[in-house]
Amino acid sequence: MVKNNFKRNLYGVQSPIPASEKKESSDIIYGRHSVLAVLESDPVRSTGSGAPPAPARQLNRVWILSKLRHDPRFHSLLKKAKANGTVVEEVGVGRLDRIARGGNHQGVAANVAPYTYWDLADLITRAKAFTESPVIAVADGIADPHNLGAIIRTAEAFGAQGVVIPQRRAASVTSTVMKVAAGALENFPVARVVNLSRALASLKEAGFWIYGTSSNAPQPIYSNKLSGSIALVVGSEGEGLSLLTEKSCDFLLSIPLAGKTPSLNASAAAAIAFYEIYRQLKPEPILI
Amino acid sequence: MVKNNFKRNLYGVQSPIPASEKKESSDIIYGRHSVLAVLESDPVRSTGSGAPPAPARQLNRVWILSKLRHDPRFHSLLKKAKANGTVVEEVGVGRLDRIARGGNHQGVAANVAPYTYWDLADLITRAKAFTESPVIAVADGIADPHNLGAIIRTAEAFGAQGVVIPQRRAASVTSTVMKVAAGALENFPVARVVNLSRALASLKEAGFWIYGTSSNAPQPIYSNKLSGSIALVVGSEGEGLSLLTEKSCDFLLSIPLAGKTPSLNASAAAAIAFYEIYRQLKPEPILI
Repeated sequence: MVKNNFKRNLYGVQSPIPASEKKESSDIIYGRHSVLAVLESDPVRSTGSGAPPAPARQLNRVWILSKLRHDPRFHSLLKKAKANGTVVEEVGVGRLDRIARGGNHQGVAANVAPYTYWDLADLITRAKAFTESPVIAVADGIADPHNLGAIIRTAEAFGAQGVVIPQRRAASVTSTVMKVAAGALENFPVARVVNLSRALASLKEAGFWIYGTSSNAPQPIYSNKLSGSIALVVGSEGEGLSLLTEKSCDFLLSIPLAGKTPSLNASAAAAIAFYEIYRQLKPEPILI
Repeated sequence: MVKNNFKRNLYGVQSPIPASEKKESSDIIYGRHSVLAVLESDPVRSTGSGAPPAPARQLNRVWILSKLRHDPRFHSLLKKAKANGTVVEEVGVGRLDRIARGGNHQGVAANVAPYTYWDLADLITRAKAFTESPVIAVADGIADPHNLGAIIRTAEAFGAQGVVIPQRRAASVTSTVMKVAAGALENFPVARVVNLSRALASLKEAGFWIYGTSSNAPQPIYSNKLSGSIALVVGSEGEGLSLLTEKSCDFLLSIPLAGKTPSLNASAAAAIAFYEIYRQLKPEPILI
């Protein structure tokens, strides 16, 4: 509750709609019937079959009035959606009005993902079925949809098997991300996880080495022998890897720089890391 | 004249302001006095001293009514500005009104560069004075300011000595480019040239090998021994290198891909090429 109050102050009635909401307005739906329809169509996950989930629109985020959240029609569906990675946020009427741009929202609005996320277990199963040395990218808190789209495009271009993104404090797959990814998201698995540390643990259990890019790493990326199943963790634009994520990494790799610019853009760093992995592994072209 | 009429049709009275103008509106000045003042302050170029030109604001583009262009106060100054890389475009009153957003433009408006370009000869002299194996990036028709900013940021980060951009059909250094470059443009030379082929010839004469990135190149970039003074030509987002530019290259390098995505974003490709040059040359940190 404290969190919600804080958010309400942060994006309060006086303040403008955050840029992320404004830009993605094409993905906004509102009204009880519309939002319930999507909540009810949420695909069954964790099939474990390695097959992609049934195509259905999913929700990145639900904004809902407090009283409606506990309405029996919404309560259990929202709980399920939350477990699947949807952010559920209680908001006031003023903010909902702005999100729905004056439309008749009836107390609820949602940001619909133009993409159906994969279950992490399915993503891992599929990756290992395709190749003996799969590469999976993990984006640690990439907030800018352009960077996320660029990372997905480059990951796919270098033959990676999928991308993992966290639910919170990070960009979801929105229409902007789809556009920047320039077609790369067709048949390319992205899993959105509630807990990134747990996802890294699952990747480790599945035999992946966790490599993280970090400007603090002593060794340049080209001095490391990269091999086996690789999970490459790319840090956020401003902060790099979170401390918790850094602890989960088996190896930290730096991209050495020679200029005055202290860091690379997240998508440039990711592109270089994917290239370096490719250069060292030089896989056969994958026929799907 | 035919060209100008074509442009007038293309961005005619009915059509909206092109995105490039809209986004960069903070760099727009208008009115005879304002534009003349900047035209008159245009720094003297080709000092050949290797020193940066005196700080002065420069013009990316001038929009002017036909009758005013031949006004004696403007005629010779515009000719000089054009020779220095400014695009001069004759437009109708309707378009000028929109560019000046209804301000009293008196027949002329201009896009002011928030950056003072370097003379190519100075850029080359400075690069060779700093290191025995300088790296200069050449952007061939990069239209997106975000990509140009990202390329400049990455070039500087990997210790390149400068960037060359063409005057036409390409993004100039605008405030968006400055912002995306994230400080990299402080003391970093960018030369804007009227003719890219002539610039590549100048670089060759100065002892540079011209490397171009091309998806058609038979050899992957990591199979080439990169050495000496390097001019790296990066092609545009859609088209890659122009045929004319490709002919000017001593070597063509490809970045091999393994996915379904047919190409990389221009700034991702540039980042990988700068990294690969760095990996092969591993220069000592440059102390400026």
